[in-house]
Amino acid sequence: MVTNLVPDVRNPACPTRVVLDRIGDRWTSLVVLTLLDGPMRFTRLRSAVGGVAPKVLTQTLRAMERDGLLSRTVHAEVPPRVDYELTELGRSLRAPIQAITDWAEAHVVDVEAARAAYDAGREDR
Amino acid sequence: MVTNLVPDVRNPACPTRVVLDRIGDRWTSLVVLTLLDGPMRFTRLRSAVGGVAPKVLTQTLRAMERDGLLSRTVHAEVPPRVDYELTELGRSLRAPIQAITDWAEAHVVDVEAARAAYDAGREDR
Repeated sequence: MVTNLVPDVRNPACPTRVVLDRIGDRWTSLVVLTLLDGPMRFTRLRSAVGGVAPKVLTQTLRAMERDGLLSRTVHAEVPPRVDYELTELGRSLRAPIQAITDWAEAHVVDVEAARAAYDAGREDR
Repeated sequence: MVTNLVPDVRNPACPTRVVLDRIGDRWTSLVVLTLLDGPMRFTRLRSAVGGVAPKVLTQTLRAMERDGLLSRTVHAEVPPRVDYELTELGRSLRAPIQAITDWAEAHVVDVEAARAAYDAGREDR
């Protein structure tokens, strides 16, 4: 389908919207930022990402592998060691994801202030 | 809480993660991109965003208003006219959201190819 179209997020039929959902996901962003430091095993990755349930991290990694964002290498050791590493495509997400997380860090105080004001306004009504 | 902390998305207790969820949302991104063209009424906004259910758009707009990203102006007409407009904070999302949507448009073909290869590989197992 997409080969006949110019990719356009404003077009509801365009698969870019599905890609947008995937890369907009909180855990995908945090896994990308974490793996920019280099390949990592599940346990260390989970601890570096922080606050993620094992099942959710497993699902996130599988979806990212399917999307071509990371590769999974099983080393023939006993017990087997599995490393997760960003692909070139995954590494290309560095700048856009950094832009989003930088914005979140720079403006979280403004957003929280806006929420408090909005909620206080609603109570007054 | 945040006033005692340096905002850090890598910290699970940091409210930046909630902000990340909000701005990573597909509809929030598309509403920001659309309203960069100027204030808009609900019906026109819905048609410009494309593919969004009225209830979902209403929820998105309310959440964005609460987060201080947009303002809602009710004009005293009969019937009342309501305009949605980005605040300065909302407009500051232009660059990061554009970076994400540009990535999605530039790489949707790579992602779809990776998915097809992954799914074909699974069938072979």
